[in-house]
Amino acid sequence: MPPTLNDIQKAAERIQPYAHRTPVLTNESLNQKLGAQIFLKCENFQKVGAFKFRGACNAVYSLSAEEAARGVCTHSSGNHAQALALAAKMRGIPAYIVMPDNAPIVKKEAVAGYGGIITFCEPTLEARETTLAKIEQETGATVIHPYNNEHVITGQGTAALELLEDVPGLDVIIAPVGGGGLLSGTAIAATEIRKGIRVIAGEPETADDAYRSLQAGKIIPSINPKTVADGLLTSLGELTFPIIQQRVEQIVTVSEAGIIASMKYVWERTKIIIEPSSAVAIGVLWEKKIDLSGLKVGVIISGGNVDLGKLPF
Amino acid sequence: MPPTLNDIQKAAERIQPYAHRTPVLTNESLNQKLGAQIFLKCENFQKVGAFKFRGACNAVYSLSAEEAARGVCTHSSGNHAQALALAAKMRGIPAYIVMPDNAPIVKKEAVAGYGGIITFCEPTLEARETTLAKIEQETGATVIHPYNNEHVITGQGTAALELLEDVPGLDVIIAPVGGGGLLSGTAIAATEIRKGIRVIAGEPETADDAYRSLQAGKIIPSINPKTVADGLLTSLGELTFPIIQQRVEQIVTVSEAGIIASMKYVWERTKIIIEPSSAVAIGVLWEKKIDLSGLKVGVIISGGNVDLGKLPF
Repeated sequence: MPPTLNDIQKAAERIQPYAHRTPVLTNESLNQKLGAQIFLKCENFQKVGAFKFRGACNAVYSLSAEEAARGVCTHSSGNHAQALALAAKMRGIPAYIVMPDNAPIVKKEAVAGYGGIITFCEPTLEARETTLAKIEQETGATVIHPYNNEHVITGQGTAALELLEDVPGLDVIIAPVGGGGLLSGTAIAATEIRKGIRVIAGEPETADDAYRSLQAGKIIPSINPKTVADGLLTSLGELTFPIIQQRVEQIVTVSEAGIIASMKYVWERTKIIIEPSSAVAIGVLWEKKIDLSGLKVGVIISGGNVDLGKLPF
Repeated sequence: MPPTLNDIQKAAERIQPYAHRTPVLTNESLNQKLGAQIFLKCENFQKVGAFKFRGACNAVYSLSAEEAARGVCTHSSGNHAQALALAAKMRGIPAYIVMPDNAPIVKKEAVAGYGGIITFCEPTLEARETTLAKIEQETGATVIHPYNNEHVITGQGTAALELLEDVPGLDVIIAPVGGGGLLSGTAIAATEIRKGIRVIAGEPETADDAYRSLQAGKIIPSINPKTVADGLLTSLGELTFPIIQQRVEQIVTVSEAGIIASMKYVWERTKIIIEPSSAVAIGVLWEKKIDLSGLKVGVIISGGNVDLGKLPF
């Protein structure tokens, strides 16, 4: 059975002592530029700088005491690894993180900084999965998949829950889509709380596997995509895809130029740091492939983790 | 008579319909790094991206209808020019802005974008003052000095007023000092509302005229200072200096390296964009020349206007 609004509400209670209730920001320049009333749900201000903490935290605190004692594990080089490490640290249990040995030093340090126990492997999916399976067997730790996990999905949905509580009357809610954890959780929360709300996803044109999956009616895997939005490289999962099929109105693709221009504009005008993946959601409004003019639009700003030494503008 | 707390409270009422009540942010990483409980008063989220809007707005709305009809004028190439242009636009009166002809295009466009009527002049103080005097004579517009103006000082003080309302029990409040408008307004509000609060200013080491002025007991002008904190190049004024003498505990100088490191750290960890002048206030805590460990410290984040094409890190 797919997760329900009730599961998301329980997740919200579960993570409430640990996660930030992030602010919703508005900006007059942005509204004028995009021709709509925009409400930014600022998950860049979340712990570890991304919404990923919600799902990881919900998964960690959903474990029984016995399961928890053996720890959690995952393979990730991104925000999920940091999020899982921090959530495990809070609960006082080990987090085993498999990372490719070519991951950026800053990401290794971040995971280690949150107390994650890192095992390096070759930078292939096969090596990651083999290494993770070995750790799982040796430690008995529970694997927490970055998005294809019910507790992760419901945890991510708590951001939309808060946004809808804080801003009544939204016409549209936009989230970026990678593996679909954030999008599916957002879609459940939004469509159950507010009948008729339009759930729209932004996806990079050059990593449009989710767009193509919806067209095809089956999961099309993402093969070596190249995009500045490095949080959106993954393929949809078996749990996230049907939720998205059922509840998401459409996926709008955004060009690389549109992502970068949106990101820069938000930095300049709203004075908040958003990562390229978040700019993909703004890009849906920026490129105006669909008409959302005059509407009340909530946008999930997924995170703010950017290497300041490698800005795309 | 110097401005009073009552004047600042009146300013707060006057600008309330026009200015943002900016949020106060906290960040666990920042607290740990700096060893204190930090409360960031986010004037980077203010209109025009800086606290300057408060003072300009208060000055514009303090004019009589007759004065207002003739407009306002100033010479500035920075945030004050934009702030005055926007405040004048809101009241529906002209703002005549004298700018050096070598001012960055982005600043010219910003002032023009807010409806400011720009007169260019040679990039010397003499040319600026002569040009401004001519405009004043021709138009009858009221000169609004960027800091040596009572309404500007009390307007800037409203940021501290809000901060102290939102965060009870502050031990220390830190603001950057350039001409002293923000610092003097902050000092009046803070010391009147909360007896015993320590008011501390941050100033670039390489533009330390305010520091030297306090030592000397008289205004030492700033002569061709060079610092990345380009909002803090000006000298103290006759109105701001005595207030600072009376109410500010000390001015702490911050190295250029300290300013840049503080700025980068705040961007990376708190995900908000602060300009170098704001990083000077953080730098007071960063460089630990004075011991503020364990204290509740309010920091006025003066603004977030940064040229993203010319970052210092």
